[in-house]
Amino acid sequence: MTLIYALEIIGTFVFAISGLRLAAKKHMDLFGATVIAFVTAVGGGTTRDVLLGAYPVAWVQDTVYPVVILLAVPFTFIFRKYIVNLKRTFFIFDTIGIALFTISGMQKALSLGIHPGLAIVMGMVSAVVGGVIRDILCNEIPLIFRKEIYATACLAGAFAFFLLDYYTTLSENIIYLITTAIIIIIRVVSIKYDLSMPKMKG
Amino acid sequence: MTLIYALEIIGTFVFAISGLRLAAKKHMDLFGATVIAFVTAVGGGTTRDVLLGAYPVAWVQDTVYPVVILLAVPFTFIFRKYIVNLKRTFFIFDTIGIALFTISGMQKALSLGIHPGLAIVMGMVSAVVGGVIRDILCNEIPLIFRKEIYATACLAGAFAFFLLDYYTTLSENIIYLITTAIIIIIRVVSIKYDLSMPKMKG
Amino acid sequence: MTLIYALEIIGTFVFAISGLRLAAKKHMDLFGATVIAFVTAVGGGTTRDVLLGAYPVAWVQDTVYPVVILLAVPFTFIFRKYIVNLKRTFFIFDTIGIALFTISGMQKALSLGIHPGLAIVMGMVSAVVGGVIRDILCNEIPLIFRKEIYATACLAGAFAFFLLDYYTTLSENIIYLITTAIIIIIRVVSIKYDLSMPKMKG
Repeated sequence: MTLIYALEIIGTFVFAISGLRLAAKKHMDLFGATVIAFVTAVGGGTTRDVLLGAYPVAWVQDTVYPVVILLAVPFTFIFRKYIVNLKRTFFIFDTIGIALFTISGMQKALSLGIHPGLAIVMGMVSAVVGGVIRDILCNEIPLIFRKEIYATACLAGAFAFFLLDYYTTLSENIIYLITTAIIIIIRVVSIKYDLSMPKMKG
Repeated sequence: MTLIYALEIIGTFVFAISGLRLAAKKHMDLFGATVIAFVTAVGGGTTRDVLLGAYPVAWVQDTVYPVVILLAVPFTFIFRKYIVNLKRTFFIFDTIGIALFTISGMQKALSLGIHPGLAIVMGMVSAVVGGVIRDILCNEIPLIFRKEIYATACLAGAFAFFLLDYYTTLSENIIYLITTAIIIIIRVVSIKYDLSMPKMKG
Repeated sequence: MTLIYALEIIGTFVFAISGLRLAAKKHMDLFGATVIAFVTAVGGGTTRDVLLGAYPVAWVQDTVYPVVILLAVPFTFIFRKYIVNLKRTFFIFDTIGIALFTISGMQKALSLGIHPGLAIVMGMVSAVVGGVIRDILCNEIPLIFRKEIYATACLAGAFAFFLLDYYTTLSENIIYLITTAIIIIIRVVSIKYDLSMPKMKG
C-alpha cells in the first residue's frame, strides 16, 4: 500500500464523518445520513475522474472505499459525543480531509499527463466538490463560498506541490507530507486569526 | 424487445410524469416543465452510466427515451385531472418508477462485471438521482431525505435481486418481477402504516 | 483558428463575466467568485462532453479556456461600472453567450455522429447548464425556469441550424452566424415585448 493510497482512505473516512455530522444536525434518518456520507466522501474524487475520463472511477473499482464509508457510520454513532458536539474536532477532521484530497487528486491528474495548471484545478475539485454537494443536498450555502479561507488553502498547497515536484529532488512521500501540512497550517492559522479573502464589490 | 428494456421505458414514462407534476405545482412554463421531465426521467440512468463509463449513455444512443418523455407532456396535460390532482395516483407511478429503475440499473451494472455490492449502489443511483435533481431544480428538499421509507425500499429490492440471482435458478424475468414487486410492496406498506427509519441524533 | 473555436472562446469569456456579476451581487470573496465564473463558463460544455463521452473534455485539454476565464476576473473588476451596474449590458453578454454555445455545442454533437434531434438537446445543454449550476450554487431559482423566453430561443436557433445544415448548401460559417443571430433576436424581442411561454396548470 502506497502512502498516497493510505492518505486517500483516511481522507474518505474523515469526509464521511463530516457528512454524517451535518446529516445528524439536519435530523435525517439513518439511510439519508449514509447517502450524505457517501456523496461527501466520493463526490470530489468521482467528479475529478469523470472530468478526466479516468475510468473506472476509484470507488467503483475498489470496494475499500464504500466499506470505509459504511464503517464511518457506527464509528460516528459510538463516538458522537466527541465528533458531533465538539466543533474543533470536526474542523480538524474536515481540514485533514481537504488537505489529503487536494494532494492525492493533483497527483492522480499529473500521473495522467495533465497540464500542471489544470492538475492544480483537479486537486481542488477533488477536495471541495464532495463538500459542495453535501451542502447543496442539505440545503446549506456551500461552505466554500462562506467567509473563511478554505479553497484558498487547497490552492496554496497544490501550488507548493507543483513547485516542489518540478524544482526539487525531494521524494514524493516527503512532498505529500509537506504540502498536506501547508494546507492544514494555512487553514488553522486563518481560522485562529479570522483571516479572509477580499470581497468582490457589488 | 426484452422485459428489462420494456421496464426501463415504462419507468422513463412514469418518472417524466412525476417531473411534469412537480413543475406544474411550481407554475413553470411548458418548456421548463419539459426540461424537468427530461432530467427526472434520465438523471438516474445517466449518472449510473457516467459513473460506470458505460458509453454511449442510454438516451444518447436510443431516441426512444426522448420520444417517450416528449409523449408524456401531452399525456399529462390530457389526463391532468387524474394525474396531477390525485396524490395516490402519482404516488403509485413514482413507486413503480423507482422499482423498475432499481432493478434495471442493478442488472446493467452486473452485466458490466461490477462487484454485486456496488451493483446494489448503482441500482439505487439509477432509481433516486433523477428525483433528487428534480427536487433540487425545483428548490425542494429532496424527497429521498424526508421521513418516509423510500430509498430503503430500493435497497431491499436490490439486495433481494442479488440473493435470487446468485443463489437460485429462477429465470431473470421472474427475478425482475419478484424484486420489482418487493420494492413496491415495501413502499406501499411503509406509507400505509407510516413507518420510517430511525433518525440520527444531532 | 476556426470561426466555431473563436465563438466558443468569446462565449466562455462572456459567461465567466455573467458568473462574476452574480457572485459580486452575492458578496462572495474573490476566490468564490472565480469558482463561480469557472463553473458558469465550462459547466455546459463539460456536461455535454461527459454525456457524449467525448474525452478529453475541452478545457482539460486546452488551457486557453481557463486562461480566458482568469482574464475575465480583472476585466470585470476594471469595467465593473459598465458590466455590474448596467443590467442591459449584462443581458446582452449573457444572450450572446447562450447563442454561441448553442450552436457550437450542436456542431460538436453532430461532428460525433449524434442523431440531429439529440444534437439539438446537446446544443441546449451546452448553453444552459452552466447558468443553472451558477444559479444553484448562488441559491437562486435557475434563470431558465423563470418567466422569460430563454431556452426556447436556444431551441429555435438549434432547430434552424438543423434545417439550414441539412436542406441548404450554405457554408458552415454563414449558418453559424445566421443561427446565432436568430437566438439573439428572439431573446431580445421576447424581452422587449415581454413575451413568455404558456404555463403548466397546477
